[in-house]
Amino acid sequence: MSRTRLGTGDRKTLLLQATCQVIARRGIRGLRVEDVAAQAEVSTTLIYYHFGNRAGLLAATIEFVSDRAGAYTSAPPGLTGHQELAHQLLSELQDTAEVRANSAVWNEFRATAVFDTSLHAAVEAATDTWNTVAAATITRGQHDGSISVDIDPKTTAEQLTALVEGLSNRWLTHLLSTAHAHSHIHDALARITPTTRIHD
Amino acid sequence: MSRTRLGTGDRKTLLLQATCQVIARRGIRGLRVEDVAAQAEVSTTLIYYHFGNRAGLLAATIEFVSDRAGAYTSAPPGLTGHQELAHQLLSELQDTAEVRANSAVWNEFRATAVFDTSLHAAVEAATDTWNTVAAATITRGQHDGSISVDIDPKTTAEQLTALVEGLSNRWLTHLLSTAHAHSHIHDALARITPTTRIHD
Repeated sequence: MSRTRLGTGDRKTLLLQATCQVIARRGIRGLRVEDVAAQAEVSTTLIYYHFGNRAGLLAATIEFVSDRAGAYTSAPPGLTGHQELAHQLLSELQDTAEVRANSAVWNEFRATAVFDTSLHAAVEAATDTWNTVAAATITRGQHDGSISVDIDPKTTAEQLTALVEGLSNRWLTHLLSTAHAHSHIHDALARITPTTRIHD
Repeated sequence: MSRTRLGTGDRKTLLLQATCQVIARRGIRGLRVEDVAAQAEVSTTLIYYHFGNRAGLLAATIEFVSDRAGAYTSAPPGLTGHQELAHQLLSELQDTAEVRANSAVWNEFRATAVFDTSLHAAVEAATDTWNTVAAATITRGQHDGSISVDIDPKTTAEQLTALVEGLSNRWLTHLLSTAHAHSHIHDALARITPTTRIHD
Protein backbone atom coordinates (compact mmCIF):
# COMPACT_ATOMS: atom_id res chain seq x y z
CA MET A 1 0.00 0.00 0.00
CA SER A 2 1.70 3.18 -1.13
CA ARG A 3 0.29 5.96 0.98
CA THR A 4 3.24 8.07 -0.23
CA ARG A 5 2.32 7.77 -3.88
CA LEU A 6 -1.27 8.87 -3.20
CA GLY A 7 0.03 11.84 -1.24
CA THR A 8 2.10 13.18 -4.11
CA GLY A 9 -0.84 14.94 -5.71
CA ASP A 10 -3.88 16.56 -4.15
CA ARG A 11 -5.54 16.28 -7.53
CA LYS A 12 -5.15 12.53 -7.50
CA THR A 13 -6.70 12.40 -4.03
CA LEU A 14 -9.61 14.52 -5.25
CA LEU A 15 -10.17 12.12 -8.15
CA LEU A 16 -10.17 9.14 -5.77
CA GLN A 17 -12.61 10.92 -3.44
CA ALA A 18 -14.86 11.58 -6.42
CA THR A 19 -14.66 7.89 -7.39
CA CYS A 20 -15.73 6.92 -3.86
CA GLN A 21 -18.67 9.32 -4.07
CA VAL A 22 -19.82 7.83 -7.35
CA ILE A 23 -19.44 4.27 -5.99
CA ALA A 24 -21.37 5.17 -2.83
CA ARG A 25 -24.22 6.37 -5.03
CA ARG A 26 -24.26 3.80 -7.82
CA GLY A 27 -21.91 0.95 -7.00
CA ILE A 28 -18.95 -0.28 -8.97
CA ARG A 29 -20.53 -2.38 -11.68
CA GLY A 30 -22.10 0.52 -13.51
CA LEU A 31 -19.27 2.93 -12.80
CA ARG A 32 -17.98 4.76 -15.87
CA VAL A 33 -14.90 6.97 -16.01
CA GLU A 34 -17.26 9.66 -17.40
CA ASP A 35 -19.25 9.62 -14.11
CA VAL A 36 -16.10 10.19 -12.08
CA ALA A 37 -15.00 12.99 -14.40
CA ALA A 38 -18.41 14.67 -14.00
CA GLN A 39 -18.30 14.26 -10.21
CA ALA A 40 -14.78 15.73 -10.00
CA GLU A 41 -15.53 18.37 -12.66
CA VAL A 42 -12.50 17.39 -14.73
CA SER A 43 -11.99 15.83 -18.15
CA THR A 44 -11.82 12.05 -18.61
CA THR A 45 -8.39 12.65 -20.14
CA LEU A 46 -7.05 13.74 -16.77
CA ILE A 47 -8.33 10.53 -15.18
CA TYR A 48 -6.79 8.38 -17.90
CA TYR A 49 -3.54 10.35 -17.49
CA HIS A 50 -3.36 9.57 -13.76
CA PHE A 51 -4.77 6.04 -13.67
CA GLY A 52 -4.37 4.58 -17.16
CA ASN A 53 -7.84 3.08 -17.43
CA ARG A 54 -10.95 2.15 -15.44
CA ALA A 55 -9.20 -0.88 -13.91
CA GLY A 56 -6.29 1.30 -12.78
CA LEU A 57 -8.70 3.82 -11.27
CA LEU A 58 -10.51 1.06 -9.35
CA ALA A 59 -7.29 -0.53 -8.08
CA ALA A 60 -6.08 2.88 -6.86
CA THR A 61 -9.46 3.45 -5.19
CA ILE A 62 -9.26 0.15 -3.26
CA GLU A 63 -5.84 1.21 -2.00
CA PHE A 64 -7.17 4.67 -1.12
CA VAL A 65 -10.10 3.23 0.83
CA SER A 66 -7.84 0.74 2.61
CA ASP A 67 -5.37 3.50 3.54
CA ARG A 68 -8.17 5.72 4.86
CA ALA A 69 -9.44 2.85 7.03
CA GLY A 70 -5.88 2.27 8.22
CA ALA A 71 -5.71 5.94 9.25
CA TYR A 72 -9.00 6.16 11.15
CA THR A 73 -8.52 2.80 12.89
CA SER A 74 -4.94 3.34 14.03
CA ALA A 75 -4.71 3.46 17.80
CA PRO A 76 -3.09 6.11 20.02
CA PRO A 77 0.19 5.10 21.70
CA GLY A 78 0.40 3.61 25.19
CA LEU A 79 -2.18 0.83 24.78
CA THR A 80 -1.72 -2.87 25.46
CA GLY A 81 -1.92 -5.17 22.44
CA HIS A 82 -5.46 -6.16 23.40
CA GLN A 83 -6.56 -2.54 23.76
CA GLU A 84 -4.95 -1.63 20.44
CA LEU A 85 -6.66 -4.54 18.69
CA ALA A 86 -9.98 -3.47 20.22
CA HIS A 87 -9.42 0.06 18.95
CA GLN A 88 -8.53 -1.16 15.47
CA LEU A 89 -11.59 -3.38 15.12
CA LEU A 90 -14.19 -1.21 16.87
CA SER A 91 -13.23 1.91 14.94
CA GLU A 92 -14.01 0.13 11.66
CA LEU A 93 -17.64 0.86 12.61
CA GLN A 94 -18.16 4.48 13.63
CA ASP A 95 -21.22 6.70 13.38
CA THR A 96 -19.57 9.26 11.14
CA ALA A 97 -20.35 9.98 7.52
CA GLU A 98 -16.69 9.47 6.60
CA VAL A 99 -16.42 6.00 8.12
CA ARG A 100 -19.83 4.87 6.85
CA ALA A 101 -19.03 6.02 3.33
CA ASN A 102 -15.58 4.44 3.38
CA SER A 103 -16.95 1.15 4.71
CA ALA A 104 -19.72 1.14 2.11
CA VAL A 105 -17.19 1.54 -0.69
CA TRP A 106 -14.99 -1.24 0.69
CA ASN A 107 -18.05 -3.47 1.12
CA GLU A 108 -18.99 -2.81 -2.49
CA PHE A 109 -15.47 -3.67 -3.70
CA ARG A 110 -15.50 -6.95 -1.79
CA ALA A 111 -18.91 -7.88 -3.17
CA THR A 112 -18.10 -6.89 -6.74
CA ALA A 113 -14.85 -8.89 -6.64
CA VAL A 114 -16.98 -12.06 -6.38
CA PHE A 115 -18.02 -11.49 -10.00
CA ASP A 116 -15.21 -9.32 -11.34
CA THR A 117 -11.89 -11.18 -11.23
CA SER A 118 -9.98 -8.06 -12.29
CA LEU A 119 -10.55 -6.74 -8.74
CA HIS A 120 -9.26 -9.88 -6.99
CA ALA A 121 -5.62 -8.88 -6.62
CA ALA A 122 -6.37 -5.45 -5.14
CA VAL A 123 -9.03 -6.79 -2.75
CA GLU A 124 -6.69 -9.58 -1.70
CA ALA A 125 -3.84 -7.12 -1.06
CA ALA A 126 -6.06 -4.88 1.07
CA THR A 127 -7.40 -7.89 3.02
CA ASP A 128 -3.87 -9.20 3.56
CA THR A 129 -2.71 -5.83 4.85
CA TRP A 130 -5.58 -5.70 7.33
CA ASN A 131 -4.97 -9.28 8.50
CA THR A 132 -1.25 -8.65 8.85
CA VAL A 133 -1.79 -5.54 10.98
CA ALA A 134 -4.27 -7.39 13.22
CA ALA A 135 -1.97 -10.42 13.55
CA ALA A 136 0.97 -8.19 14.51
CA THR A 137 -1.15 -6.49 17.16
CA ILE A 138 -2.20 -9.89 18.53
CA THR A 139 1.45 -10.98 18.72
CA ARG A 140 2.27 -7.77 20.57
CA GLY A 141 -0.60 -8.50 23.00
CA GLN A 142 0.77 -11.99 23.59
CA HIS A 143 4.15 -10.46 24.47
CA ASP A 144 2.70 -7.87 26.88
CA GLY A 145 0.39 -10.46 28.50
CA SER A 146 -2.91 -8.90 27.39
CA ILE A 147 -3.77 -11.64 24.86
CA SER A 148 -3.81 -15.41 25.38
CA VAL A 149 -0.72 -17.23 24.10
CA ASP A 150 -2.95 -20.22 23.28
CA ILE A 151 -4.21 -18.66 20.06
CA ASP A 152 -2.55 -18.41 16.66
CA PRO A 153 -2.22 -14.72 15.71
CA LYS A 154 -2.74 -15.19 11.95
CA THR A 155 -5.76 -17.50 12.31
CA THR A 156 -7.36 -15.29 14.96
CA ALA A 157 -6.74 -12.16 12.89
CA GLU A 158 -8.52 -13.76 9.92
CA GLN A 159 -11.47 -14.73 12.10
CA LEU A 160 -11.80 -11.32 13.72
CA THR A 161 -11.57 -9.35 10.47
CA ALA A 162 -14.05 -11.74 8.79
CA LEU A 163 -16.45 -11.20 11.70
CA VAL A 164 -16.05 -7.43 11.41
CA GLU A 165 -16.75 -7.61 7.67
CA GLY A 166 -19.84 -9.75 8.26
CA LEU A 167 -21.08 -7.33 10.91
CA SER A 168 -20.16 -4.34 8.76
CA ASN A 169 -22.48 -5.37 5.94
CA ARG A 170 -25.40 -5.67 8.37
CA TRP A 171 -24.45 -2.39 10.02
CA LEU A 172 -24.29 -0.60 6.66
CA THR A 173 -27.76 -1.96 5.84
CA HIS A 174 -28.99 -0.72 9.25
CA LEU A 175 -29.89 -4.24 10.37
CA LEU A 176 -27.46 -3.72 13.25
CA SER A 177 -26.76 -0.56 15.28
CA THR A 178 -23.20 0.60 15.90
CA ALA A 179 -23.55 -0.23 19.60
CA HIS A 180 -24.87 -3.71 18.85
CA ALA A 181 -22.08 -4.42 16.35
CA HIS A 182 -19.51 -3.14 18.87
CA SER A 183 -20.91 -5.43 21.53
CA HIS A 184 -20.40 -8.43 19.22
CA ILE A 185 -16.78 -7.36 18.64
CA HIS A 186 -16.26 -6.92 22.40
CA ASP A 187 -17.49 -10.49 22.93
CA ALA A 188 -15.00 -11.83 20.38
CA LEU A 189 -12.19 -9.84 21.98
CA ALA A 190 -13.10 -11.08 25.47
CA ARG A 191 -12.51 -14.64 24.26
CA ILE A 192 -8.83 -14.00 23.52
CA THR A 193 -7.85 -12.52 26.87
CA PRO A 194 -5.51 -14.77 28.87
CA THR A 195 -7.92 -15.77 31.63
CA THR A 196 -11.57 -14.95 31.00
CA ARG A 197 -13.73 -16.99 28.70
CA ILE A 198 -17.01 -15.39 27.67
CA HIS A 199 -17.39 -12.06 29.44
CA ASP A 200 -15.10 -9.02 29.25
CA MET B 1 -40.69 -17.48 4.07
CA SER B 2 -43.38 -19.07 1.96
CA ARG B 3 -41.81 -22.12 0.42
CA THR B 4 -45.35 -23.25 -0.36
CA ARG B 5 -46.14 -20.24 -2.49
CA LEU B 6 -42.96 -20.73 -4.54
CA GLY B 7 -43.79 -24.39 -4.98
CA THR B 8 -47.20 -23.74 -6.51
CA GLY B 9 -45.78 -23.27 -9.96
CA ASP B 10 -42.78 -24.83 -11.64
CA ARG B 11 -42.81 -21.91 -14.01
CA LYS B 12 -42.35 -19.47 -11.16
CA THR B 13 -39.41 -21.52 -9.92
CA LEU B 14 -37.89 -21.49 -13.41
CA LEU B 15 -38.23 -17.71 -13.52
CA LEU B 16 -36.52 -17.36 -10.14
CA GLN B 17 -33.74 -19.70 -11.25
CA ALA B 18 -33.28 -17.57 -14.35
CA THR B 19 -33.12 -14.44 -12.17
CA CYS B 20 -30.36 -16.05 -10.08
CA GLN B 21 -28.44 -16.90 -13.24
CA VAL B 22 -28.64 -13.33 -14.48
CA ILE B 23 -27.60 -11.96 -11.06
CA ALA B 24 -24.65 -14.39 -10.86
CA ARG B 25 -23.46 -13.04 -14.21
CA ARG B 26 -24.18 -9.33 -13.91
CA GLY B 27 -25.22 -8.48 -10.39
CA ILE B 28 -28.42 -6.88 -9.22
CA ARG B 29 -27.84 -3.24 -9.90
CA GLY B 30 -27.93 -3.56 -13.66
CA LEU B 31 -30.57 -6.28 -13.71
CA ARG B 32 -33.48 -5.63 -16.04
CA VAL B 33 -36.66 -7.67 -16.29
CA GLU B 34 -35.82 -8.01 -20.00
CA ASP B 35 -32.61 -9.87 -19.12
CA VAL B 36 -34.50 -12.36 -16.99
CA ALA B 37 -37.10 -12.84 -19.72
CA ALA B 38 -34.33 -13.53 -22.24
CA GLN B 39 -32.62 -15.96 -19.87
CA ALA B 40 -35.86 -17.85 -19.19
CA GLU B 41 -36.98 -17.59 -22.83
CA VAL B 42 -40.33 -16.09 -21.87
CA SER B 43 -42.01 -12.73 -22.37
CA THR B 44 -41.57 -9.90 -19.88
CA THR B 45 -45.38 -9.93 -19.54
CA LEU B 46 -45.22 -13.34 -17.89
CA ILE B 47 -42.71 -12.04 -15.36
CA TYR B 48 -44.84 -8.98 -14.59
CA TYR B 49 -47.86 -11.28 -14.27
CA HIS B 50 -46.14 -13.43 -11.63
CA PHE B 51 -44.13 -10.81 -9.72
CA GLY B 52 -45.78 -7.45 -10.38
CA ASN B 53 -42.59 -5.51 -11.05
CA ARG B 54 -38.81 -5.64 -10.76
CA ALA B 55 -38.97 -5.05 -6.98
CA GLY B 56 -41.42 -7.93 -6.58
CA LEU B 57 -39.18 -10.19 -8.66
CA LEU B 58 -36.16 -9.29 -6.50
CA ALA B 59 -38.02 -9.81 -3.21
CA ALA B 60 -39.22 -13.24 -4.42
CA THR B 61 -35.65 -14.08 -5.47
CA ILE B 62 -34.24 -13.26 -2.01
CA GLU B 63 -36.85 -15.58 -0.50
CA PHE B 64 -36.04 -18.26 -3.09
CA VAL B 65 -32.29 -18.05 -2.37
CA SER B 66 -32.91 -18.11 1.38
CA ASP B 67 -35.19 -21.15 1.06
CA ARG B 68 -32.64 -22.98 -1.09
CA ALA B 69 -29.94 -22.31 1.53
CA GLY B 70 -32.35 -23.52 4.21
CA ALA B 71 -32.79 -26.76 2.26
CA TYR B 72 -29.12 -27.57 1.62
CA THR B 73 -28.03 -26.64 5.15
CA SER B 74 -30.73 -28.57 7.02
CA ALA B 75 -29.22 -31.36 9.07
CA PRO B 76 -30.17 -35.05 9.12
CA PRO B 77 -32.02 -36.25 12.26
CA GLY B 78 -30.31 -37.75 15.29
CA LEU B 79 -27.66 -35.05 15.84
CA THR B 80 -26.96 -33.13 19.03
CA GLY B 81 -27.69 -29.41 18.95
CA HIS B 82 -23.99 -28.68 18.55
CA GLN B 83 -23.64 -31.13 15.67
CA GLU B 84 -26.72 -29.74 13.98
CA LEU B 85 -25.44 -26.18 14.32
CA ALA B 86 -22.11 -27.29 12.86
CA HIS B 87 -23.92 -28.90 9.94
CA GLN B 88 -26.02 -25.80 9.33
CA LEU B 89 -23.07 -23.41 9.32
CA LEU B 90 -20.48 -25.56 7.54
CA SER B 91 -22.85 -26.50 4.73
CA GLU B 92 -23.30 -22.82 3.87
CA LEU B 93 -19.89 -23.21 2.20
CA GLN B 94 -19.73 -26.26 -0.06
CA ASP B 95 -17.67 -26.93 -3.16
CA THR B 96 -20.66 -27.43 -5.42
CA ALA B 97 -21.81 -25.19 -8.26
CA GLU B 98 -25.28 -24.96 -6.70
CA VAL B 99 -24.08 -23.75 -3.31
CA ARG B 100 -21.49 -21.37 -4.74
CA ALA B 101 -24.04 -19.82 -7.08
CA ASN B 102 -26.66 -19.52 -4.37
CA SER B 103 -24.17 -17.95 -1.95
CA ALA B 104 -22.97 -15.53 -4.60
CA VAL B 105 -26.52 -14.34 -5.24
CA TRP B 106 -27.20 -13.92 -1.52
CA ASN B 107 -23.89 -12.08 -1.11
CA GLU B 108 -24.88 -9.76 -3.96
CA PHE B 109 -28.27 -9.05 -2.38
CA ARG B 110 -26.68 -8.19 0.95
CA ALA B 111 -24.17 -5.88 -0.71
CA THR B 112 -26.72 -4.19 -2.94
CA ALA B 113 -29.06 -3.60 0.01
CA VAL B 114 -26.44 -1.20 1.43
CA PHE B 115 -27.32 1.20 -1.38
CA ASP B 116 -30.82 0.09 -2.36
CA THR B 117 -33.23 0.59 0.52
CA SER B 118 -36.03 -1.18 -1.39
CA LEU B 119 -34.19 -4.46 -0.66
CA HIS B 120 -33.84 -3.85 3.10
CA ALA B 121 -37.03 -5.56 4.25
CA ALA B 122 -36.43 -8.77 2.27
CA VAL B 123 -32.75 -8.98 3.28
CA GLU B 124 -33.70 -8.34 6.90
CA ALA B 125 -36.39 -11.06 6.80
CA ALA B 126 -33.95 -13.61 5.34
CA THR B 127 -31.29 -12.68 7.91
CA ASP B 128 -33.80 -12.91 10.74
CA THR B 129 -34.94 -16.35 9.58
CA TRP B 130 -31.34 -17.58 9.51
CA ASN B 131 -30.58 -16.14 12.96
CA THR B 132 -33.77 -17.59 14.40
CA VAL B 133 -32.98 -21.08 13.10
CA ALA B 134 -29.42 -20.89 14.48
CA ALA B 135 -30.61 -19.58 17.87
CA ALA B 136 -33.19 -22.36 18.13
CA THR B 137 -30.50 -24.94 17.40
CA ILE B 138 -28.25 -23.40 20.06
CA THR B 139 -31.08 -23.56 22.59
CA ARG B 140 -31.62 -27.22 21.70
CA GLY B 141 -27.88 -27.83 22.22
CA GLN B 142 -28.07 -26.18 25.63
CA HIS B 143 -30.89 -28.54 26.55
CA ASP B 144 -29.09 -31.69 25.37
CA GLY B 145 -25.82 -30.61 27.02
CA SER B 146 -23.80 -30.19 23.81
CA ILE B 147 -23.63 -26.37 23.98
CA SER B 148 -22.58 -24.20 26.91
CA VAL B 149 -25.42 -22.70 28.93
CA ASP B 150 -23.23 -19.62 29.58
CA ILE B 151 -23.97 -18.13 26.16
CA ASP B 152 -27.01 -16.25 24.92
CA PRO B 153 -28.53 -18.13 21.94
CA LYS B 154 -29.68 -15.05 20.02
CA THR B 155 -26.42 -13.13 20.46
CA THR B 156 -24.29 -16.14 19.60
CA ALA B 157 -26.44 -16.93 16.55
CA GLU B 158 -25.92 -13.37 15.27
CA GLN B 159 -22.17 -13.63 15.78
CA LEU B 160 -21.86 -17.01 14.09
CA THR B 161 -23.95 -16.09 11.06
CA ALA B 162 -22.07 -12.78 10.70
CA LEU B 163 -18.79 -14.70 10.79
CA VAL B 164 -20.07 -17.12 8.14
CA GLU B 165 -21.13 -14.19 5.94
CA GLY B 166 -17.75 -12.52 6.35
CA LEU B 167 -15.96 -15.77 5.51
CA SER B 168 -18.38 -16.46 2.65
CA ASN B 169 -17.46 -13.27 0.80
CA ARG B 170 -13.75 -14.17 0.99
CA TRP B 171 -14.51 -17.76 -0.01
CA LEU B 172 -16.56 -16.61 -3.01
CA THR B 173 -13.65 -14.40 -4.07
CA HIS B 174 -11.29 -17.37 -3.68
CA LEU B 175 -9.26 -15.60 -1.00
CA LEU B 176 -10.14 -18.51 1.29
CA SER B 177 -10.49 -22.22 0.46
CA THR B 178 -13.53 -24.19 1.60
CA ALA B 179 -11.35 -26.19 4.03
CA HIS B 180 -9.83 -23.02 5.47
CA ALA B 181 -13.23 -21.37 5.91
CA HIS B 182 -14.58 -24.54 7.55
CA SER B 183 -11.65 -24.60 9.95
CA HIS B 184 -12.52 -21.04 11.06
CA ILE B 185 -16.13 -22.12 11.65
CA HIS B 186 -14.95 -25.18 13.60
CA ASP B 187 -12.89 -22.88 15.86
CA ALA B 188 -15.92 -20.71 16.56
CA LEU B 189 -18.06 -23.78 17.32
CA ALA B 190 -15.41 -25.21 19.65
CA ARG B 191 -15.73 -22.07 21.78
CA ILE B 192 -19.37 -22.75 22.62
CA THR B 193 -19.00 -26.34 23.83
CA PRO B 194 -19.63 -26.71 27.57
CA THR B 195 -16.07 -27.50 28.67
CA THR B 196 -13.37 -26.83 26.08
CA ARG B 197 -12.14 -23.37 25.33
CA ILE B 198 -10.10 -23.00 22.14
CA HIS B 199 -9.62 -26.41 20.54
CA ASP B 200 -12.25 -28.82 19.26
